[in-house]
Amino acid sequence: MTQSNAPLVGQSVPRREDRALVSGKGRFLDDIASPGGLHAAFLRSPYAHARIGTADLEEVRAMPGVVAVYTARDLAALLPGGQRLVTGLPSSSIAFALDRPILPEHETVYVGEALAMVVAETRAEAEDAAEMIDLDLDPLEPVADLENAARHDAPKAHAHLPHNRLARFGFSYGDIAAAFDGAPHVMSRRFRIDRGGAHSMEGRGVLAAPDAMTGRLSVWSSTQTPHALKRHICTLLARDDAEVEVTAPDLGGAFGPKLVTYPEEIAVAAAAQALGRPVRWVEDRREHFLAACQEREQLWTVEMALEADGRIRGLRGTLLHDHGAWTARGLNVPYASGMMLPLMYEVPAYDLDIIVTVTNKTPVTPVRGAGQPQATYVMERLLDAGARACGIDRAEIRRRNLVTPDRMPCERPLKLRSGEPVILDSGDYPRTQATALEGIGWHGFEDRRREARARGKRLGLGLANYVEGTGRGPYETVTIRVARDGRIKVNTGAAAMGQGVGTALAQIVAEHLGRDPSTIDLTLGDTREPYGFGGFNSRQTVVAGASADAAARVVRRKVLQVAAHLLQMPEENLDIAADLVIVAGSNSGEGLSLAEIAAASEGLPGYRLPGIDTPGLQATERVLIEGMAFANGCLAAEVEVDEATGAVHVARLFLAHDCGRMVNPQMVDGQILGGLAHGLGNALYEKMCFDDQAQPLTASLADYLLVTSAEMPVIEIAHTESPSPLNALGVKGVGESGVIPTAAAIASAVEHALEDLGIEISEAPISVQALHAAIRAARPGGPE
Amino acid sequence: MTQSNAPLVGQSVPRREDRALVSGKGRFLDDIASPGGLHAAFLRSPYAHARIGTADLEEVRAMPGVVAVYTARDLAALLPGGQRLVTGLPSSSIAFALDRPILPEHETVYVGEALAMVVAETRAEAEDAAEMIDLDLDPLEPVADLENAARHDAPKAHAHLPHNRLARFGFSYGDIAAAFDGAPHVMSRRFRIDRGGAHSMEGRGVLAAPDAMTGRLSVWSSTQTPHALKRHICTLLARDDAEVEVTAPDLGGAFGPKLVTYPEEIAVAAAAQALGRPVRWVEDRREHFLAACQEREQLWTVEMALEADGRIRGLRGTLLHDHGAWTARGLNVPYASGMMLPLMYEVPAYDLDIIVTVTNKTPVTPVRGAGQPQATYVMERLLDAGARACGIDRAEIRRRNLVTPDRMPCERPLKLRSGEPVILDSGDYPRTQATALEGIGWHGFEDRRREARARGKRLGLGLANYVEGTGRGPYETVTIRVARDGRIKVNTGAAAMGQGVGTALAQIVAEHLGRDPSTIDLTLGDTREPYGFGGFNSRQTVVAGASADAAARVVRRKVLQVAAHLLQMPEENLDIAADLVIVAGSNSGEGLSLAEIAAASEGLPGYRLPGIDTPGLQATERVLIEGMAFANGCLAAEVEVDEATGAVHVARLFLAHDCGRMVNPQMVDGQILGGLAHGLGNALYEKMCFDDQAQPLTASLADYLLVTSAEMPVIEIAHTESPSPLNALGVKGVGESGVIPTAAAIASAVEHALEDLGIEISEAPISVQALHAAIRAARPGGPE
Repeated sequence: MTQSNAPLVGQSVPRREDRALVSGKGRFLDDIASPGGLHAAFLRSPYAHARIGTADLEEVRAMPGVVAVYTARDLAALLPGGQRLVTGLPSSSIAFALDRPILPEHETVYVGEALAMVVAETRAEAEDAAEMIDLDLDPLEPVADLENAARHDAPKAHAHLPHNRLARFGFSYGDIAAAFDGAPHVMSRRFRIDRGGAHSMEGRGVLAAPDAMTGRLSVWSSTQTPHALKRHICTLLARDDAEVEVTAPDLGGAFGPKLVTYPEEIAVAAAAQALGRPVRWVEDRREHFLAACQEREQLWTVEMALEADGRIRGLRGTLLHDHGAWTARGLNVPYASGMMLPLMYEVPAYDLDIIVTVTNKTPVTPVRGAGQPQATYVMERLLDAGARACGIDRAEIRRRNLVTPDRMPCERPLKLRSGEPVILDSGDYPRTQATALEGIGWHGFEDRRREARARGKRLGLGLANYVEGTGRGPYETVTIRVARDGRIKVNTGAAAMGQGVGTALAQIVAEHLGRDPSTIDLTLGDTREPYGFGGFNSRQTVVAGASADAAARVVRRKVLQVAAHLLQMPEENLDIAADLVIVAGSNSGEGLSLAEIAAASEGLPGYRLPGIDTPGLQATERVLIEGMAFANGCLAAEVEVDEATGAVHVARLFLAHDCGRMVNPQMVDGQILGGLAHGLGNALYEKMCFDDQAQPLTASLADYLLVTSAEMPVIEIAHTESPSPLNALGVKGVGESGVIPTAAAIASAVEHALEDLGIEISEAPISVQALHAAIRAARPGGPE
Repeated sequence: MTQSNAPLVGQSVPRREDRALVSGKGRFLDDIASPGGLHAAFLRSPYAHARIGTADLEEVRAMPGVVAVYTARDLAALLPGGQRLVTGLPSSSIAFALDRPILPEHETVYVGEALAMVVAETRAEAEDAAEMIDLDLDPLEPVADLENAARHDAPKAHAHLPHNRLARFGFSYGDIAAAFDGAPHVMSRRFRIDRGGAHSMEGRGVLAAPDAMTGRLSVWSSTQTPHALKRHICTLLARDDAEVEVTAPDLGGAFGPKLVTYPEEIAVAAAAQALGRPVRWVEDRREHFLAACQEREQLWTVEMALEADGRIRGLRGTLLHDHGAWTARGLNVPYASGMMLPLMYEVPAYDLDIIVTVTNKTPVTPVRGAGQPQATYVMERLLDAGARACGIDRAEIRRRNLVTPDRMPCERPLKLRSGEPVILDSGDYPRTQATALEGIGWHGFEDRRREARARGKRLGLGLANYVEGTGRGPYETVTIRVARDGRIKVNTGAAAMGQGVGTALAQIVAEHLGRDPSTIDLTLGDTREPYGFGGFNSRQTVVAGASADAAARVVRRKVLQVAAHLLQMPEENLDIAADLVIVAGSNSGEGLSLAEIAAASEGLPGYRLPGIDTPGLQATERVLIEGMAFANGCLAAEVEVDEATGAVHVARLFLAHDCGRMVNPQMVDGQILGGLAHGLGNALYEKMCFDDQAQPLTASLADYLLVTSAEMPVIEIAHTESPSPLNALGVKGVGESGVIPTAAAIASAVEHALEDLGIEISEAPISVQALHAAIRAARPGGPE
């Protein structure tokens, strides 16, 4: 039992989610029973690009267990509000809309795209029938390669398009020509970052059940954004907000790809409503490889102009961004990349041209990091090159350019997508870097390197600074209510996907309501309140946390007011400890229970008290968050490179990290460790490969390399806490922090290990084959 | 289509409810399909008082279709939160609690009390099985008569009670002894008002359906107070507010008895939850006669002291109130009677002793009027007697005593149950009376009377003044939202029971949102918002109306703000006409539709606009209402009494009426006409009779006389509108207005018709038998 006034926020309270999860009592999408329910399976395109013809479905419809078969045309009748997932793209920078259809009618544009849906009594029957659909497909020339796609004479990813350049926009400030004119050093480089997925343990899945008696449609989906899904369902099925409820059950991870609404979710909801029975679809891993959104693929051609002492004069270039085959969520990934590139350093002039290109590949939307890892990779690579050109230490060139703490809060000559200026809110970046250098043993490492080299080992140290834009507003609603039994009910639009946001919110609420946080009942991802956002952009502890804090203060005031009335004592003399309102400071164990106070508040004369103008021990708050809270960090990495094979062994990672005030340090560490693991994959392993017909070559966990515990290095984390001035709690987000600097820091370390060979790393991931080839090329006489 | 700024409030807009109702498309409780649903039937007590023994249920459980049989003990296991409907009685004035059990375990206390429940596949099977339950009942001596019950040596209505006097309280102010000491006239009278029901066309009914997938319990009930029912279900079944939803479908009338929560509603909900299937119970008329709450039975022994000129010096006496067998809703009926008696007249001293008595009869709770008709009857009868004693006109004695308009708002030396002072808020009572006299032809009637008498007919004119306390607070929540399709959604706790509250709210909302009120979607009796009250005390147009008005103003402001942003025009230049935002005053038919504005408000940069701090085109308001709005009226009646038979023919009723600003005059008239019909029943026909064993003798529509259209006289209504200062709309309630003065005015007219015989009327209803006997007694030689 937690004592009143104990500083719960800041304690590593055990995660409330874990008892159920580790004892097998989690309730994931496929755990939800649906008596009398049906199963859906999808026919998926075997071609990256093909014209869709007709199919004779008579035989398939007659197959055992088959209840319904839907092509695009069949589904259209069930979607009076439209047959595409409309995303609100800013109109000035895009050339054409590519809102994806629920099922495409005339043309399929990537391998794995859902073309038809079968609903049957069992999953096996649905899959068998989907396989038997003989849909006429006439292959068209696809475009797979990003650079190729951007060419004007390239094959068109969609036959009707004039070209594949979906959008072009950029960032520009300062006198860029002057910056480069007569610069002592100009680094010109090309960087390629490859495509990968998020690969949460649980794939996607959706279950929809119509209620014949209430007329409502209940939908469960393994989604980060139940409100967005509800909005799409309401729009396309032409139902009102009050008639549709979307719930996200326990999620076995999400990491970005579950942020967007998918065609399968709409198709299943439409079929359930039409058939009057529950319908379920649970993605298998192969489908996840083909049809769950991916990210990262970018090609940068950039130049950095430097003073002789390493200070940055300017930064310019072109970013080619692979958008995949459809627009599944705006342009926020390339936007974030372009905004992030110069953000934490003093860059007096900046000019970036961004070209967003359509390809016949799975659509691209945010994966943990969302464009920020690529920008960090490019910037940090350029700084390493600059350090070599200027003949100064890699850490020193960064120190000379970092935004300094005396400038905080520091407005940058950049704008958020909302048009608001970008303001770095707080943090001491040089100190963060110094902490990382100290932690990894930067100074004095040369001795260790020499010794190792003498033993035939190539060691290297690298580093990467980064900021993470977190806590995107505008708000998340939180309602807190003391129920009749005295339990505290918290409802919010914030969505759980395994990250422990429930624990954080319970801590924040318990801080004010004197309770053991484990006795607070939480409903996350609550779509009964029609306005909400969900989990993305490392935002929820910031935005839902701020609302929870505000609502808990109101409920506390109400509890004390009612208690003061009942006890005929001044409110100021009372306090809440555990579930009792007590005389402040007393230890007698006597007091009014929250249940008693809740009961009294319902029966009070006139049903209310002076000064209380809303009913019940309840409060709803939605704190508006302006701007973004920027977390920062510096990751230092020590690697050993096997010169003979090109294999990279990451020996140690030391992260100096600052995400403002930490609600639960252990959970912060958990987020960082997961992010670093993912970043390690981006640095060395994870790569989604396609052939020239845009056929995926890595569509199983046998071909696509995920990091396992065997690859994980020793990891140390040092926290500093620079509270954000943007919210009352001073918190910043941390969900994507670990992934952002990892590929950059490891590339830096690999270069360092191979310094004498003059090998520069310009790709992520660094494949063992490529590195082996580079070493061979650099040392033709070296070991094979 | 209604024009912008048209004064919708005040127009007789057609009732939005009627199209469905008159075309057979109403959705009453029994119209709701429940696939796979079960049916409940109750075993009801044949005795007014008996000890309950055991029953062997083996055979009954084995009967065809029977799914479950519940006695009190079986049900207890399903009711972890308690087995009684607890009503929050004020503790100081009551002698003992009589909270009614869901099913009684040891003792039954009125004929018709539910003793056991059968749930079966069909209604017929359930009824057959309930009939077959051989429950051992050991009769105890009952108490039927109110006066007898109050005696200390009376049989006890409950075996364990010390006596039958449930509560004793009173009203007292002024120097009552001085008022009577040396008064020129003292009228001492005894009045008896009999018991009756409300007899809505549709009886009670409940349907409960558990949802296996969401875990929620959906309950439909033909109730005036879905929030109270939800509260009781949540408490007794130990469920949280979020897990239970109660909906009131179309109601075929209610009139008070559907205001309280009944044991059947809880038993059905508990069984549905336990059995995992829908369970339905629909009351039949016989059950309605036995087990739906009733009212009115009171015995008054009162004295009025008068000056020689008819001015009131004081009023004192005793009110004996029949409470029935259980406390189903506090003491508000006798409280209202006592508070109302002296309210609209200048009564310098008042002393009333109220004794609330338990009897072995159906519990008593408000029926339309709720204690006010009885008080009006008593006061007006005393004034008629006083007029005769003083030798002045019956209208003149009233005029001399009425509270005058120069005193408004006029605080009375009385308190509401909440402890707030009673303040008559507005109205011109003498003018109302003068209007009624003018309307009925009071002056000059003597000529008509004489002429008629010459033709062998006895005509009489009567009048009665009254006030109605309406609009009880504290509030009713209203949420208004412009949906994506541009339709306006209004949700409120206010409950419809056929009176047209939806039409009134739609008018109030449409006033601000420029729409045809018929295109507004309403959800009434919405229990998703956990705090609400429902329909009683003529309150909803006042309290929900005030909140609807406030919420509509906020939504209008938001709509105009978003439109101003989109059109880049000042908000002040814009207006809403029909479903378009237009440039104020323009007639071009061009504008932004509400759907366009709703869509834009979701996608705006940063999701919000300056000055708008809540999301969406939505607002929730709950205006707190202090005090009560007092409507007033004067009913004048013309009757013809058949001297030979004692039959009374009511020829004309003229009502001068003032309920403040009228939202919809036609609906106000509808409420009044219905109330007058009910009042006519109370005056002449409706009487629930019991024998000395408390067996109901009038438990069918063949024995209990309801007014039919044949009995309805010519009715004229004249409105004045004295706006209430207590709410922004200036409205007052009207739902109970018609019923309050009717018995009093008709009694006054009957006395007038029989003036020369010296017959005084002191009972309601006036039975033809009693009047015949009185005429015979007064004129032994007259016609038989």
